[in-house]
Amino acid sequence: MKRLGSQPDPDRRAPTMVDVAKLAEVSLATVSAVINDSAPVSADRKKRVLDAIRRVGYQTNAIARSLKTGSTKTIGLMIADITNPFFTAVIHSIQEVAYHHGYGVMLCCSDEDPEKERLHLRLMSDRMVDALIIATAGETPPLRALIDSRRKPVVLIDRLLDGVATDAVVIDNVAAARDAVRYLVSLGHRRIGLITGKSTLSTARERYQGYCQALAEAGIAIENALVGAARFGSADGYGAAMGLLSLAERPTAIFASNNLSGIGLMRGIKDSGLRCPADISVACFDDFEWADVFEPRLTTLVQPTRAIGAQAMAIVLEHLQDGGAQRSAARVVRMRAQLRIRDSCVMWPPPPGLST
Amino acid sequence: MKRLGSQPDPDRRAPTMVDVAKLAEVSLATVSAVINDSAPVSADRKKRVLDAIRRVGYQTNAIARSLKTGSTKTIGLMIADITNPFFTAVIHSIQEVAYHHGYGVMLCCSDEDPEKERLHLRLMSDRMVDALIIATAGETPPLRALIDSRRKPVVLIDRLLDGVATDAVVIDNVAAARDAVRYLVSLGHRRIGLITGKSTLSTARERYQGYCQALAEAGIAIENALVGAARFGSADGYGAAMGLLSLAERPTAIFASNNLSGIGLMRGIKDSGLRCPADISVACFDDFEWADVFEPRLTTLVQPTRAIGAQAMAIVLEHLQDGGAQRSAARVVRMRAQLRIRDSCVMWPPPPGLST
Repeated sequence: MKRLGSQPDPDRRAPTMVDVAKLAEVSLATVSAVINDSAPVSADRKKRVLDAIRRVGYQTNAIARSLKTGSTKTIGLMIADITNPFFTAVIHSIQEVAYHHGYGVMLCCSDEDPEKERLHLRLMSDRMVDALIIATAGETPPLRALIDSRRKPVVLIDRLLDGVATDAVVIDNVAAARDAVRYLVSLGHRRIGLITGKSTLSTARERYQGYCQALAEAGIAIENALVGAARFGSADGYGAAMGLLSLAERPTAIFASNNLSGIGLMRGIKDSGLRCPADISVACFDDFEWADVFEPRLTTLVQPTRAIGAQAMAIVLEHLQDGGAQRSAARVVRMRAQLRIRDSCVMWPPPPGLST
Repeated sequence: MKRLGSQPDPDRRAPTMVDVAKLAEVSLATVSAVINDSAPVSADRKKRVLDAIRRVGYQTNAIARSLKTGSTKTIGLMIADITNPFFTAVIHSIQEVAYHHGYGVMLCCSDEDPEKERLHLRLMSDRMVDALIIATAGETPPLRALIDSRRKPVVLIDRLLDGVATDAVVIDNVAAARDAVRYLVSLGHRRIGLITGKSTLSTARERYQGYCQALAEAGIAIENALVGAARFGSADGYGAAMGLLSLAERPTAIFASNNLSGIGLMRGIKDSGLRCPADISVACFDDFEWADVFEPRLTTLVQPTRAIGAQAMAIVLEHLQDGGAQRSAARVVRMRAQLRIRDSCVMWPPPPGLST
């Protein structure tokens, strides 16, 4: 620990309108009227207020403006896991659009915990954000109440809530998961494992549906033993993977329905002394920037992260600009994920003569 | 696009103290006095205000309290790149501590652009955050002015500013880089490349110093051609790597002084038709969660991301709680990174009989 020689200012409290009012010997209402130009104030009193503003170092700021306009020019952004590269890519996109429109972003992370999300929501409501963009960790009564109250625009991203009429930007998870599993089927796999997420999340449910549809199309029965429950994190993905890999008749391919559980799966394969793709094929949801420079190069479902963030912000801005007057109903925008085929899935059984 | 059948509230503007004052037919100062319990108000007028608060749906909120206290219970967090896992790990830690103390976090990302950082700082100052934690993209006059004004606590993380007396939490970058390069030297490497960052960043300068120290100790001359300039991103890391790899006498090992440039380096090695570690050894700054499950398993410098975030928040809270009164000078807390040896560095020249 190193000490630099300089004294901190003993009074760091930022000056407020109250300080201005005291020094100018006028009421708070008069200060507000001058700052917001909201009511006539005599030239003498106005001069006293302006002098006091300069002397106490008060700046006409967002807080004072908020009192008048009810707007903080801040978007609340609630995401489920900041260590998930899918979310950081979406955050980056939202932040960029917000910035270009003069909005700040207040970020909260629920760590996939609905209770934590509930408390964060209260924190954000208390801060009076103008609108919220939420990738929910799971429905709670306060979240539903917030949306139902329609007091401020709420746009859901990534995850929908059943029967809740609010705007949302998501992907077609059923189609995406179906694409990945169809691909595994096309390679000859019939014992295909799934690492799923909590059934309270629409993404987990829809990806499970896509998995089931692809198997049904191929006449393959769903086996519960091949569905490993996890919670979209790498540690629980690892646990689910270890369960699947230790089955007497283990799967020849596994589809991890989110990126962190995919990493847990790869760790499980390694710890089991197996090789991907020689012993087991892997496809997973969400791409990584590094996915094509390390081995095995993962086959992934690539989500349009930039477009998801931009679209969510576009809807928020539309609401904030027209006060909802132009809008007649909640929209659910569904985008498509793309299957990016690399090297982590191979034919099953391996063609004769092919070294594995 | 799907439409759900429900009408948005045509007037979504949140009720303000002004609305309360109008309905109660009292002054704004009276509303403020009731809400903040800051001045005596007659029982009759108090009842009118409380009734009006209920009728307009106004909630005693952070904005109103801010007027009185000058505090928003919000920490501004400026980071350089949200797609960098080092920063997301630190954000996660900061967010967690802030949450436990009832603070919200307003996050801004500068994308390693000092000009963007300058504009974001204005945005955050305008929102009147109580304190700032900043991983700067490079010094700008407004950042220096903000720190020098001492109007609110500023804690720098990851990156220091020369001669600026403010609290900071960083690691010993010289020692860390020296450790990594010493290790490469111990394996027999003498042509060791470096991918560095912008020289305006203390981390880039200090890591370069550590590289130079380790080479000097070993009696190896610094060759400018072996130092590839990048900007701590994967694309420019790739460019720097391609430069180093196309040298007539290319290095046998490269140290990437940040994680994203390490990914760029690995892509460059792949695109050059080389293999790591057989053809070239690689060590890089910052660990990845997936680093030990994909090949090659990278040798990295692991930063104490959780401790960095927690320490920065502890300093912020100390300032906010005691108003700086207990503190006599700015502190620079320096933590240590650990070299985690995996498989991406091998002996040079390869021992006879060892297959590469």
